Amino acid sequence: MTKPEVEITYQSISPSDFFYRNREIAGFSNPSRAIYAAVRELLENSLDACESISIPPKIYLRITEITPSDAERESAVYVLRIEDNGTGIPSEHIPRCFGQVFYGSKYNLKQARGTFGLGGTITVLYGQITTHKPVKVVSSTGVEIHEYEMMIDIEYNRPMILRHTVLENKKGWRGTIVELHLEGDYTRSMSKLYEYLKQTAMVCPYADITFVDPKGRLYRFESATNVMPKPPKTVRPHPHGIDVETLRRMTATSKVKNMKLFMIEQFQGVGVMTAEKFLNFAGIDPKTDPKSLSPDDVVKLVRAAKEFKEFLRPDASCLSPLGEELLSTGIRKELNLTEKDFLRVYQRHPSTYSGFPFIVEAAIALGRSLSKNEEGSKMIYRFANRIPLLFDESSCVVWKVVNKNINWSTYKVSNDTPLVIAVHLCSTKIPYKSVGKEFLADQPEVEKEITNALRHIARYLRLYISRNIRLAKEKRRLNVFEKFLPKIAEFSAKLADKPEPPDIKPLLNAVGAELPEVERKIREVPQIAGEND
Amino acid sequence: MTKPEVEITYQSISPSDFFYRNREIAGFSNPSRAIYAAVRELLENSLDACESISIPPKIYLRITEITPSDAERESAVYVLRIEDNGTGIPSEHIPRCFGQVFYGSKYNLKQARGTFGLGGTITVLYGQITTHKPVKVVSSTGVEIHEYEMMIDIEYNRPMILRHTVLENKKGWRGTIVELHLEGDYTRSMSKLYEYLKQTAMVCPYADITFVDPKGRLYRFESATNVMPKPPKTVRPHPHGIDVETLRRMTATSKVKNMKLFMIEQFQGVGVMTAEKFLNFAGIDPKTDPKSLSPDDVVKLVRAAKEFKEFLRPDASCLSPLGEELLSTGIRKELNLTEKDFLRVYQRHPSTYSGFPFIVEAAIALGRSLSKNEEGSKMIYRFANRIPLLFDESSCVVWKVVNKNINWSTYKVSNDTPLVIAVHLCSTKIPYKSVGKEFLADQPEVEKEITNALRHIARYLRLYISRNIRLAKEKRRLNVFEKFLPKIAEFSAKLADKPEPPDIKPLLNAVGAELPEVERKIREVPQIAGEND
Repeated sequence: MTKPEVEITYQSISPSDFFYRNREIAGFSNPSRAIYAAVRELLENSLDACESISIPPKIYLRITEITPSDAERESAVYVLRIEDNGTGIPSEHIPRCFGQVFYGSKYNLKQARGTFGLGGTITVLYGQITTHKPVKVVSSTGVEIHEYEMMIDIEYNRPMILRHTVLENKKGWRGTIVELHLEGDYTRSMSKLYEYLKQTAMVCPYADITFVDPKGRLYRFESATNVMPKPPKTVRPHPHGIDVETLRRMTATSKVKNMKLFMIEQFQGVGVMTAEKFLNFAGIDPKTDPKSLSPDDVVKLVRAAKEFKEFLRPDASCLSPLGEELLSTGIRKELNLTEKDFLRVYQRHPSTYSGFPFIVEAAIALGRSLSKNEEGSKMIYRFANRIPLLFDESSCVVWKVVNKNINWSTYKVSNDTPLVIAVHLCSTKIPYKSVGKEFLADQPEVEKEITNALRHIARYLRLYISRNIRLAKEKRRLNVFEKFLPKIAEFSAKLADKPEPPDIKPLLNAVGAELPEVERKIREVPQIAGEND
Repeated sequence: MTKPEVEITYQSISPSDFFYRNREIAGFSNPSRAIYAAVRELLENSLDACESISIPPKIYLRITEITPSDAERESAVYVLRIEDNGTGIPSEHIPRCFGQVFYGSKYNLKQARGTFGLGGTITVLYGQITTHKPVKVVSSTGVEIHEYEMMIDIEYNRPMILRHTVLENKKGWRGTIVELHLEGDYTRSMSKLYEYLKQTAMVCPYADITFVDPKGRLYRFESATNVMPKPPKTVRPHPHGIDVETLRRMTATSKVKNMKLFMIEQFQGVGVMTAEKFLNFAGIDPKTDPKSLSPDDVVKLVRAAKEFKEFLRPDASCLSPLGEELLSTGIRKELNLTEKDFLRVYQRHPSTYSGFPFIVEAAIALGRSLSKNEEGSKMIYRFANRIPLLFDESSCVVWKVVNKNINWSTYKVSNDTPLVIAVHLCSTKIPYKSVGKEFLADQPEVEKEITNALRHIARYLRLYISRNIRLAKEKRRLNVFEKFLPKIAEFSAKLADKPEPPDIKPLLNAVGAELPEVERKIREVPQIAGEND
């Protein structure tokens, strides 16, 4: 037996170091994506900070070029500055919020844009490794103002505070300002960045966003309303879709004495009756001490919770969907749809995957003014917790549903039909497939809800299309009358030796009068059976 | 000023907890993907463990169904077992290799399948949270055999050892066995899993892989050769593309006294002359103590290293590409290509991105036997460090190059041409865009190399296609002779009143003799100018 001579070293690295080594997976894959990702992460944090306290966001974003980009190097150094009027971050948390990977305020069951608690730190990290400059964070929760200048100790995943100043806050300002240097390629990211801001404004009509770009151009997205959606609340998990690790943790820390109380206390929508029925179904004695459950009992409970049909639907009040009206207004405006165009939006009932509640909202539009996507395929707008998703469309479950699950010919949609599809998923946890938050994993439950939502709307679409076909036929029929009746009249007049042809208007009206009626019928949208499939 | 009443809690989570909460981003997005991802992660670890010591891998993989899957639940519980004959893991590292996220042997500059050092642990984690069963790891480096039964303490990111047994190793066995329970959907993952194993066998002809599936079917991929590629070596970074964090760390730990020695010692391919020239170019005194560099000096050096043109090309010996012969043999076999079909492979010179060397190998095939991809687009095979990439094709930079960067009509390729394209990227660090390792980020340098490789081959393709067009023309011309010459002969015979038409064979031969010659010319592949663009 020979022992091979090979040197293998084992090593542990910090989460900061991991993301430093693998920044592509967080969206910072090249200078153009980096600037886009940085703006996204900071803007989403700002919007969350405002919405969590129901304050209409006023956000000021500025990107300034520091070293001019030359033709050879495709990137330049920029200063990115963002100011918001949100909650502010308590001083003691500021350094770790921007200087420690896996530290944040978003590790709970609550609808928020951020889900990983990573964005701020990774943006700071990227700025640091490309420019070696510290980040400046100014924040106040309404009392004094704290100003930090800091960097990240990447090897140890901890903030290094270079300066901390406390300022008086005479005007009672509340909010956060972040300013950092980073290398990027603004020119290439420009169009996506603008599209991102525009779509964000579309789904956040209560937000006021000002953007000054490196060329000094000002983009202003004014708020259209002061009405804010209800702020999302932290909720207890829904039993349908819990996993063994979560259940184990819950039983380990629970203070109640028996499983019946445990079910009622720890989960949403479980009352006395349901708890008893469920535990009976699962074969667990309601008097069992949660702490005494064996691993097999935990597995049994998890499986039973997946199969038990009598839990209440998950509580939707913790979610903050756009609503059919807002979605439809936004789309109508964005696509310049007219009254005659087809637009239908639909909000599904709440559902769950892996214990997380979610709601799917969908819309389909079809109209003369819509042109086809450049690839000739259907145009898809994707939103997740009010974040527009612009990249990697075809890896997204929405794309899969539209292009694989739904047989559009059933709905009389041909490949040439210029269809626009919008899907908004809101959830306490969006099932992103990458840390860059660009596309949704194909969680079976989510996929099913999106499919059902689009199929539901597509049935109205089929009616609309077949009526349009009928309308076109009617029009052709009337055209025939309009074309030939005068000739017949003229001919008859000649035959009868009359100097003038008879007046055909009354006749034409008699036939043509149907048209508005037909059109009215065709525009009328009926209720489709099985509304709540 | 009112302080809004809102409860925001800040919290730190462990890397294990992060991946537990976000397992979709590591490829475990649903029961079908989970089983595929688990096999991949463990198989890739096994292949790496064998290749690192140049031992032809013999791998035994078995998936057994434990609880039968019923129609309602789309998943079942399986036992996954994999055995290899690789290096084995030293006993003291086993628990952390499978029980601590961000712990491993792959955090170095070395070509390996694993890049994140995550795969093993995440697979164990997934098994644990779906079945609550421990993992069993048996391993030996050739001395005694260690058997561990363990779980992961997810909240604290550390292994919990349930049992550790040391066994005698009379036969001198070396290798690793991993056995774990997990929930999955084998039926749905089956076809992708088989495709994955098949393509793996294609690019690892020296590996012997046996797979017993849950239905008891045996799949055997026998090795076709004993020749192993040279094992990859750990290398020093290349200066072109280093970032400030890496340079800062290197200067902080370096023991040499001046920057000249620092450059020579820390980087590959930098000699005395180059070090002096470069430091002069960067405006840094060669006598400067590395530890005394200011942050601005570090930034200056990094920028200069990107712009300096006189570094040697990165050392390719640390990479282990497939080679043109192996790639071409593999593709020819896989696609059943004949001699007359077009197949050309091309290996680019090594290049770097962010300090990581990489080599692009590419191939294009065109032949009668090839059918079009179902979507009518070009068929793309993607490999990264000998891993076949099967999912999320259109998010990959290879797809981008094929479908956006290259104007195929320039090469006389129409939309109907049944083209097959294969790209293999090998690097000390593959720029994956997601932890699930399914697609490559569009790193500008990598994108450029892939584009150049394919353009290079496409020029031969254009020749082939235009010659085929010429050949077709020639054939049509000869067909005309063959068709009409006998008639002319007959007619002439009649005219001349001869009983028999003249023998036209010599005449036909005289004209037709050109065909093989034309065909030979058309098959002949010339050198194209600018081979090394």
